[in-house]
Amino acid sequence: MSDDTERPRASAGETPTAIERRLAQAHDRIQDAPADALVLFPSTNLAYLSGFDEEPMERHLFLFVTADEAVFLAPTMYDTQLAAETPVSSIRTWDDGDDPTTLLATLGNELGIESGRLLVDDRMWARFTQDLRKTFPEATFGLASQLLDDLRIRKDDRELDHLRAAATIADDVSSAIRSLGADAIGLTETELADEIETRLSAAGGNGVSFETVVGSGPNGARPHHRHTDRTIRHGDPVVLDFGTVVNGYPSDQTRTVVFAGDPPAGFEDAHDAVLAAQQAAIRTVEPGIEAQEIDHAARNVLDERGYGDRFIHRTGHGVGLEVHEPPYITDGNDLELEPGMVFSIEPGVYLDDEFGIRIEDLVVVTDEGCERLNRSPRTWEPVTGADD
Amino acid sequence: MSDDTERPRASAGETPTAIERRLAQAHDRIQDAPADALVLFPSTNLAYLSGFDEEPMERHLFLFVTADEAVFLAPTMYDTQLAAETPVSSIRTWDDGDDPTTLLATLGNELGIESGRLLVDDRMWARFTQDLRKTFPEATFGLASQLLDDLRIRKDDRELDHLRAAATIADDVSSAIRSLGADAIGLTETELADEIETRLSAAGGNGVSFETVVGSGPNGARPHHRHTDRTIRHGDPVVLDFGTVVNGYPSDQTRTVVFAGDPPAGFEDAHDAVLAAQQAAIRTVEPGIEAQEIDHAARNVLDERGYGDRFIHRTGHGVGLEVHEPPYITDGNDLELEPGMVFSIEPGVYLDDEFGIRIEDLVVVTDEGCERLNRSPRTWEPVTGADD
Repeated sequence: MSDDTERPRASAGETPTAIERRLAQAHDRIQDAPADALVLFPSTNLAYLSGFDEEPMERHLFLFVTADEAVFLAPTMYDTQLAAETPVSSIRTWDDGDDPTTLLATLGNELGIESGRLLVDDRMWARFTQDLRKTFPEATFGLASQLLDDLRIRKDDRELDHLRAAATIADDVSSAIRSLGADAIGLTETELADEIETRLSAAGGNGVSFETVVGSGPNGARPHHRHTDRTIRHGDPVVLDFGTVVNGYPSDQTRTVVFAGDPPAGFEDAHDAVLAAQQAAIRTVEPGIEAQEIDHAARNVLDERGYGDRFIHRTGHGVGLEVHEPPYITDGNDLELEPGMVFSIEPGVYLDDEFGIRIEDLVVVTDEGCERLNRSPRTWEPVTGADD
Repeated sequence: MSDDTERPRASAGETPTAIERRLAQAHDRIQDAPADALVLFPSTNLAYLSGFDEEPMERHLFLFVTADEAVFLAPTMYDTQLAAETPVSSIRTWDDGDDPTTLLATLGNELGIESGRLLVDDRMWARFTQDLRKTFPEATFGLASQLLDDLRIRKDDRELDHLRAAATIADDVSSAIRSLGADAIGLTETELADEIETRLSAAGGNGVSFETVVGSGPNGARPHHRHTDRTIRHGDPVVLDFGTVVNGYPSDQTRTVVFAGDPPAGFEDAHDAVLAAQQAAIRTVEPGIEAQEIDHAARNVLDERGYGDRFIHRTGHGVGLEVHEPPYITDGNDLELEPGMVFSIEPGVYLDDEFGIRIEDLVVVTDEGCERLNRSPRTWEPVTGADD
């Protein structure tokens, strides 16, 4: 059965020790939250804290974490998968045909949390939160992020390994795609997006981390653009923003490439400014700096170069089990950066009806500064001799 | 810009008239629910009722529907997209930097719903339901499905067109894939899944409706199997369960194929039994029949043929904007079928460590019986001369 390896998911990449460490931290921190229990459902929080990685489903499935205990309430059909994926050993099951809220009431009573303060998964469906409220009418409710954000925001070594692996796959595909050069001319954005996704998968990536963006010509300036039937032409700047997933952790990087021909007037100067802004922001990263200072560093460069009003979004977002999570690299965020935090640095300039430019890398804060997870060329020319 | 067509999404396929009809029904039914307002967030319910089709997001975005009014509360960055996608004209926006709950309180007051009964989207995140409760502490809460399930369960003509279109794409790919015959031998399950997905996209499908299942040999008997590095061999039965999306509506069909060589002992008889069970269930469908009778029809055939205890799941699930939604074709469901309901009929037989068999089509209930949306061959041989 050696060739029967399931595609790796978040749980498969995490040793029981890493999960047990996170659970121990959660146990330690609950009382000071203050709270009596976390109540999670299938989500990135659940994958992070337990190793069990599933999409939200119609059936009631919860993880309760108190100061002393961790217990799953789950449909019987998941018992084997739970035993395989999580070190949490206490699993209370209910069968199709049972009323899961009966087991819920029993479990809440045993854990002593019926009148407690419950921090529920931020994304838990109303269907389930309403059942929790019906079953525990004396309880009060908050959000699990209050406790878990602070754990998730600092990536451990295994998480960084997965993020680096995903970034490397994306880098290799980025370099290969830009090398298409004139062969990309005449493809539609959608054909190029499909090519990117096929190559990400062939290189070992597990699907895409978000819908691939191929923004050619004026489409590059549209904020919600993904990809269309527009044909890529000589001289078109093309915004290429794509990512894949390794063991549950995403990559996310952007380059803007002119596959063949001469770019429009004004493009080279704008691209140069965006690259300078991105590099300035990266140089600013170190422990103790506020997240907003990274944004200011990028924005100042673009202001000086005359493009400030065309930089119409924040500089970046944290990346982890979610492709958008804290810390957000935006004006107003005074969170102090710490080693292990991972986020994007992605300034851009958008000229309506002309073109867009964005250059993005992920970085991890280190003791001395930061490490870029992406190494592929950031120039706009199609083929380059070396990494920049 | 004629070649700049965005990939069709649910909203693009719906004329304003269809959306306006659904809104009118919602206005009519709210008071009898009983309720004062629906409160939806980005979801299939929101796409269905308004035409605005987005994934759930970090920023507060709601649609309020009362007996008389429909109003969006949305981030300013979505105002253009809303104007383009929904006939709902009342859109109240908030900027990044504002506190959206301020606008929420104002809007609730204007609509007169602060102390009312609010039916929230069943999948609304706890993050947002907790803000609704904080902002409207006198309100009571139920679930939007209480009102919307009955609208969504009967598909209108446009929805049926989309479902037929998606089914046809999947049928064409199914026929092409089975025709690989001996060329499929030596491929891994994952390679075959990638081939299926590439062809679905090339045929105009918009992504996959769920993760493609390629279950070869013993993998076909595992309930949560998707696809692995296992190599497809001569004589392997292969469960092929995949779907695509057209204008927001999915296809979902399954065939079990032996690409080359002789299948294992017992397979032919079991496949014949599953096909007979599926056909019996399809013949049973007509208005007025209870959903569970369709399940019983399939199960009875498999019981008679000696495979009853290997048919380990319900017979089917409704299909619409969600690939799993009411009506569920399962024992215990006494819902009477009506014209316009769409669901799968997918009996299966699973022999642990040997093989699995499943045959699935979608059907729509008609005035006289039902119409199968899928027409591709259901045999296990690779190449057939005609549709069965």
